[in-house]
Amino acid sequence: MQVSFSESKNILRVGGRTLELLQFHFHSPSEHAFNGRRFAMEAHLVHRDMRTKKLAVVGIILDADKYSVPNKGLAESLAYAPAEHGRSVHIHDVSFSPGLLLPPTTRNSKRRYLHYVGSLSTPPCSEDVDWFVLEKPLHISTSQVLNFLRFAGDGRSLAFNSRPLQPLGDRVVHEGP
Amino acid sequence: MQVSFSESKNILRVGGRTLELLQFHFHSPSEHAFNGRRFAMEAHLVHRDMRTKKLAVVGIILDADKYSVPNKGLAESLAYAPAEHGRSVHIHDVSFSPGLLLPPTTRNSKRRYLHYVGSLSTPPCSEDVDWFVLEKPLHISTSQVLNFLRFAGDGRSLAFNSRPLQPLGDRVVHEGP
Repeated sequence: MQVSFSESKNILRVGGRTLELLQFHFHSPSEHAFNGRRFAMEAHLVHRDMRTKKLAVVGIILDADKYSVPNKGLAESLAYAPAEHGRSVHIHDVSFSPGLLLPPTTRNSKRRYLHYVGSLSTPPCSEDVDWFVLEKPLHISTSQVLNFLRFAGDGRSLAFNSRPLQPLGDRVVHEGP
Repeated sequence: MQVSFSESKNILRVGGRTLELLQFHFHSPSEHAFNGRRFAMEAHLVHRDMRTKKLAVVGIILDADKYSVPNKGLAESLAYAPAEHGRSVHIHDVSFSPGLLLPPTTRNSKRRYLHYVGSLSTPPCSEDVDWFVLEKPLHISTSQVLNFLRFAGDGRSLAFNSRPLQPLGDRVVHEGP
């Protein structure tokens, strides 16, 4: 499921860059692992760097347990998702705040992230993409995970839609801010 | 996850047969489809026909939505499951009622099932197995589905453990009782 913006007014400032949101989409299980562990889902907010025009993706781990409540951003995305995975729908007159997909901050804490230069995780798997993976997961409900797996399975079964873990290779991962 | 019985006292009467429970285990997604649709999970209660000594499996569809509550039978099975998928544990002094995995009946309704002769869905995929698939699903919670997917993923990711759908071939499916 991918939500695109034709006239984006969603600007994110991260690691000294100014990023304009192009689209966002979801994967299950998460495409990043922490200490070898992958989580239930991951949101990818795909941006363009307004200065260099390079792609930059903000990855947000979505975790779920029996105590977690539904996330409004994911709920709205699933509500407007096309019945079949892989098709796209155009929705007008709907306002959506991608900020709903960011974990909350407190007054004294910025959102910490890990940064590396990698590639897109879906074809054409373009290289030279700035990745910013937030360290803190966003909590969603277990029903939302199951709904997404059914969506990825075209409503006929459950399915995953993540790329297998890739070796780190010679990439350097920085922690910020 | 497979729970075995060394001295089974669990007897099931179905389709004129008397079946003795050998073990039970779970799959996700379901291995049977209804109208082309697979469900979140399926329980397989593997029996031996006490007269013919043939294997007979009772399949129970496990369905989940945001309103469904945890099933006690699955909860107890997951609580005793080994930390790593594929390993087995021996548990003593635990009483467990496999009846917890059967959908409830009412005074005037028997459990309806579909019967066909097929094979086991895991190696050695032995043939000439009597399958009884209950028509009515048992409801489990969405957290239980996610817990099982994590279990199948050895705690490091989510994973499925079902055989792909097989063509019906020339098998005849009967409805009973």
